[in-house]
Amino acid sequence: MAGRVVLVASWIDEETPLDHVLPAGALERIRGLRDFVVEDAKSARRFLAACRHPLPIREIAMAELNEHTAEAAVPALLEPARAGRELGLLSEAGMPAVADPGARLVACAHAEGIAVVPLVGPSSILLALAASGLEGQRFRFAGYLPADAAGRAAALAELERRSAADDETQVFIETPYRNDALLGDVLKTCKPATRLAIAAGVTGSSEWIRMRAIEAWRGEVPVIGKRPAIFLLHAAAKKRR
Amino acid sequence: MAGRVVLVASWIDEETPLDHVLPAGALERIRGLRDFVVEDAKSARRFLAACRHPLPIREIAMAELNEHTAEAAVPALLEPARAGRELGLLSEAGMPAVADPGARLVACAHAEGIAVVPLVGPSSILLALAASGLEGQRFRFAGYLPADAAGRAAALAELERRSAADDETQVFIETPYRNDALLGDVLKTCKPATRLAIAAGVTGSSEWIRMRAIEAWRGEVPVIGKRPAIFLLHAAAKKRR
Repeated sequence: MAGRVVLVASWIDEETPLDHVLPAGALERIRGLRDFVVEDAKSARRFLAACRHPLPIREIAMAELNEHTAEAAVPALLEPARAGRELGLLSEAGMPAVADPGARLVACAHAEGIAVVPLVGPSSILLALAASGLEGQRFRFAGYLPADAAGRAAALAELERRSAADDETQVFIETPYRNDALLGDVLKTCKPATRLAIAAGVTGSSEWIRMRAIEAWRGEVPVIGKRPAIFLLHAAAKKRR
Repeated sequence: MAGRVVLVASWIDEETPLDHVLPAGALERIRGLRDFVVEDAKSARRFLAACRHPLPIREIAMAELNEHTAEAAVPALLEPARAGRELGLLSEAGMPAVADPGARLVACAHAEGIAVVPLVGPSSILLALAASGLEGQRFRFAGYLPADAAGRAAALAELERRSAADDETQVFIETPYRNDALLGDVLKTCKPATRLAIAAGVTGSSEWIRMRAIEAWRGEVPVIGKRPAIFLLHAAAKKRR
């Protein structure tokens, strides 16, 4: 059998039943894997236990790939796939290789001609975009914004400029404990008519998704707290006269 | 009960068993809906039959929302949700309100304070991005490129420029019967070191996902045919001297 890299999406919220976020066929496929590259071994063990993986956890081979992994160490992680086995790539939350360090392994697989198979699973970015009601024909995921006040204000102005120029939704994120500070900066910095969506706790029991104009948000500022959150904005284009 | 808009992802490939692309919990939820807004009624009927929806198809209320729908006609489509029922929003393929006209309904729901709940399902854009091995920390979905030769060449140059400037993956699509023409234009126009991923037939039995540099693709041009395909490129940044 030819080896493959199988992309396994993990739950976004660990309290959500897995059969609400992963197809039965994906769960079945995951239970057949015995080699994994994971972002974080501890959360991977919890996830595989919840998947009711048939092997004792200590018999599942697990190598870590994260922001601390040296570039030169990545190709060796593909060894199980080279040996003809299916190698699972598992993120800490959501789709691997999207907004996480897993893409480096996938790129190595392509370089060696090893097939890559993505299994369907949750992506908070995409679920938030769909539920935002903002432009979904063109969008951009910008990741994290600068942490310093001046850099962040400039970045937000640039997101508004690009959104208006290209009629595209701009998506960004923040470390959860800074969500409310980011929201404060967005409400202070952005134009009143810019539309902002906030998607917090996506797929979980505390899921909360709202979209309104900045000026409406200013009148009633929500508390996001430490739930993982996605922010999306769309700025009105300047009217041509 | 408060009405809601429930976002239902449809299969990408109609020959894929639904339990490979939709969680059991999502299928259960879909079977409980009796009001839908759909992109195309004919394909929606096939999908709901495959979901083993318990109601006879003619008893399921189905309104169409697509590129022919007038702006003024959209708010009326929310009537079932206003009446306290759950209203399913169903795309022709993949996630609704992403690369389809459904976002207009979702925006109206937010304007009226109607909750929006996205169910997990397949998105060819996101699966392709994860499986591409290209930068997943920052990416941009640009939709369709211009059809005329000069406009398309300029658009491709702009995608390469933005990719290099922002270190972000640029994602674009084409009407399936023009896939191979688009690929020809990309190989003719883009820089040799730019990396291109092609993801064709995602989730289906003919799924084919490869990533390599333009110069490597030029040596062995694949035939994509009429499978739905996603194109992704990442251009190397200019070396600073």
